Amino acid sequence: MAKYPSHLSHLIAFLKKFPGVGARTAERFAFHMLEWPEDHLKHLADLAATLKEKVKHCDICGCLKEKEQCAFCEGARDRAALCVISSPKDAYAIEETRFFHGLYHVLGGLLSPLDGRTPDHLSLQRLKDRIASNQVTEVIVALESTIEGDATALYLKEQLSKLGVKISRLALGLPMGSPLEYIDGGTLSRALSGRQLL
Amino acid sequence: MAKYPSHLSHLIAFLKKFPGVGARTAERFAFHMLEWPEDHLKHLADLAATLKEKVKHCDICGCLKEKEQCAFCEGARDRAALCVISSPKDAYAIEETRFFHGLYHVLGGLLSPLDGRTPDHLSLQRLKDRIASNQVTEVIVALESTIEGDATALYLKEQLSKLGVKISRLALGLPMGSPLEYIDGGTLSRALSGRQLL
Repeated sequence: MAKYPSHLSHLIAFLKKFPGVGARTAERFAFHMLEWPEDHLKHLADLAATLKEKVKHCDICGCLKEKEQCAFCEGARDRAALCVISSPKDAYAIEETRFFHGLYHVLGGLLSPLDGRTPDHLSLQRLKDRIASNQVTEVIVALESTIEGDATALYLKEQLSKLGVKISRLALGLPMGSPLEYIDGGTLSRALSGRQLL
Repeated sequence: MAKYPSHLSHLIAFLKKFPGVGARTAERFAFHMLEWPEDHLKHLADLAATLKEKVKHCDICGCLKEKEQCAFCEGARDRAALCVISSPKDAYAIEETRFFHGLYHVLGGLLSPLDGRTPDHLSLQRLKDRIASNQVTEVIVALESTIEGDATALYLKEQLSKLGVKISRLALGLPMGSPLEYIDGGTLSRALSGRQLL
């Protein structure tokens, strides 16, 4: 007895490409889609097929844009502050805080020699050009605190220090709402060394 | 500052329709799709758009079919045994056991008066017709053990008992590999009452 109809098997194989989706979940998704109305399926198909055409990366900052202009680069924002992020998604997380009003710069990844990600893979020259030509006074390095993120932050500091710009990094410490007993030793050490006067 | 580009927001809204997928997961999926190559997106779009056209329900048993004939109904199978399932997906789970070689009958749901699912919503008349016209000798009710599944199984027993056919239901008891301490009281009661001689 064959397993699923081949069209369904192909669909399941595609749904498995989503992060964190294994065979069982992909099957659930596919069978769920079988119950969707026809127009829902056509609409999803249309959104997927035209995704790359409709959502493009800004030539200047690397964030997502839907119109000709990038909402960040063309908006009324503080041009003296530049926030370096690893991927476009991070810009939206930072926007939600409503704390930062400067511009973004998408690096396009983190340094990871083991995965073959060298400085050549990051948009570093463009970052230097932007800092030099736009009178940027502060660069905020908003990279995650992993081995790759730490290495990339150090590398950025080394590369940008000659440009006479203030370079800061997101504070490392306790996440809000988490009991102290669940915090790992590394994070606790960083929270202690970065302690602030009350 | 607007949130995501509207095309991306629409895609996220669609991805949220998948079972168990909330806003955060849908966002991850959508940003993941942005990194897929163009031909992958087109292929997925094509699979979604033609899903209903390519995968149809068998007119006889209600299972999925891709060709003109249903692989179950037209195959060399034991026509005296009929397994009643709630949805087409269940047939594949039963097929995997390689234990059952009869035909299937998809009810199309379970009785649930609170959700407005009455006997009229189930393909009951077609089930009776199939039993009568195909010399079926055993009907295996393979419905889940929930309030709705139990109610539907009892209703089926009542409806089919006049047809002179053997009606059985999947055994209820301990799932394999699970320690006894994690088994709920209801399941343990059913396992005790259904105990078998060694």
